[in-house]
Amino acid sequence: MRIARFVSQAGISWGVVEGPADAGPDGLTLAAIKDHPMGPIEFTGDRYALSDVRLLAPILPSKVIGVGRNYAKHAAEMGNEVPERPLIFLKPSTSVIGTNDVIRLPVDSDRVEHEAELALVIGRVAKDVPREKAAEVIFGYTCANDVTARDQQRDDGQFTRAKGHDSFCPIGPWIETRFDPSAVRVRALVNGQVRQDGTTADMVFDIATLVSFMSHVMTLVPGDVILTGTPDGVGPILDGDRVTISIDGIGELTNQVRRK
Amino acid sequence: MRIARFVSQAGISWGVVEGPADAGPDGLTLAAIKDHPMGPIEFTGDRYALSDVRLLAPILPSKVIGVGRNYAKHAAEMGNEVPERPLIFLKPSTSVIGTNDVIRLPVDSDRVEHEAELALVIGRVAKDVPREKAAEVIFGYTCANDVTARDQQRDDGQFTRAKGHDSFCPIGPWIETRFDPSAVRVRALVNGQVRQDGTTADMVFDIATLVSFMSHVMTLVPGDVILTGTPDGVGPILDGDRVTISIDGIGELTNQVRRK
Repeated sequence: MRIARFVSQAGISWGVVEGPADAGPDGLTLAAIKDHPMGPIEFTGDRYALSDVRLLAPILPSKVIGVGRNYAKHAAEMGNEVPERPLIFLKPSTSVIGTNDVIRLPVDSDRVEHEAELALVIGRVAKDVPREKAAEVIFGYTCANDVTARDQQRDDGQFTRAKGHDSFCPIGPWIETRFDPSAVRVRALVNGQVRQDGTTADMVFDIATLVSFMSHVMTLVPGDVILTGTPDGVGPILDGDRVTISIDGIGELTNQVRRK
Repeated sequence: MRIARFVSQAGISWGVVEGPADAGPDGLTLAAIKDHPMGPIEFTGDRYALSDVRLLAPILPSKVIGVGRNYAKHAAEMGNEVPERPLIFLKPSTSVIGTNDVIRLPVDSDRVEHEAELALVIGRVAKDVPREKAAEVIFGYTCANDVTARDQQRDDGQFTRAKGHDSFCPIGPWIETRFDPSAVRVRALVNGQVRQDGTTADMVFDIATLVSFMSHVMTLVPGDVILTGTPDGVGPILDGDRVTISIDGIGELTNQVRRK
């Protein structure tokens, strides 16, 4: 099931996306639901053509947890070793935007890069979750772009500033709740050209390990978003670019890039 | 004005602390207020002896932003240089606890340390705030303990895991809204012994600079908490310890320490 959050004339609500997996926006409809999508789903009866509404970030997370160097080839392209355990960092909730929103390049960075990532959304309060029970606390999956000011990341050592700017966490276009994340293609395209083309089968730490590890550090709450790392091929995005994160079985997350 | 958040028989609410600045809990009362303390303050008429209620963290922040190496002597004791610009990091909202709550030592750390800090609470949405207008977006000040698993901080390089465990961000006991933060004494006491004794006059980057800098990276929203760095003298806290952060003009934040 694909869960989207959107604005229509009736206001902001969640809805279930209906239509074939390979259809463009014109072939899809949204069936609005009452209340929050993590509860029992009850439809309002209102339906919209997807092209008639504005999609929003499909969830407003209380925290976004990322993981560095979770694909060996990406660690190598950055000159790093693969870590012994997941190397976690946080992005602020204020960095989250949805599909078709604009990524704003900060004035104090000369090198902002895309990082295509599979993201997951937590569905249940989770603390000290064993690896074999991790799937039970996951609500669904979405596409993410872990946008990073590479020069600031190198200058600071800490990732917070480089990855924390407003608009640096596009997620969407919706949450796919029925999804096997073990070996899916994750791509980044800039102006239609493929820049990253990886598979989640190459993760150093798989999703169950990430969720278990993070939940042993901090309590995960419903809506929290976990970014699972980026494959190799990261590169710059510039004023005027159009960047798309495409994940087979989920969909496409597209954002324009603008100098702030 | 001192704003506390507390639990009474009537539930959770905010209140204004009344009584002399140097009084202990027995000499203070709480006048409950309606609604949120950042709006116009209207009293419910209910009053409580402070000793009869349980204080909570005075605010539930959407984000907690910290700054590393903001006192030269602390940077030196950790073997670091003072940074060229504020070195920011995030603590998750799930790490926040209040006074008298328990700091839980994680099983996978052998060295957890106290860091006494002056914290401020944001009162207005703030983006790209000039230094000279920073005071306008601050709601008030409180005491904080930026609890840190020092071994994990050294192992990871990134601060997130080391500083992100549940219970690793005690704040309180309340928010002081009328306060000059420019030269106040900040102390940490463990079992009554003074371990840190610094003054905010020694900050590398002052509060206006920190708020302005952070607001140029990410939008600050009401309730966000900024930790302003720790003076020298950080050291271990152990199972059974009682750690107090004391800031002149605000009050004392005290937490018991327990092995998880």
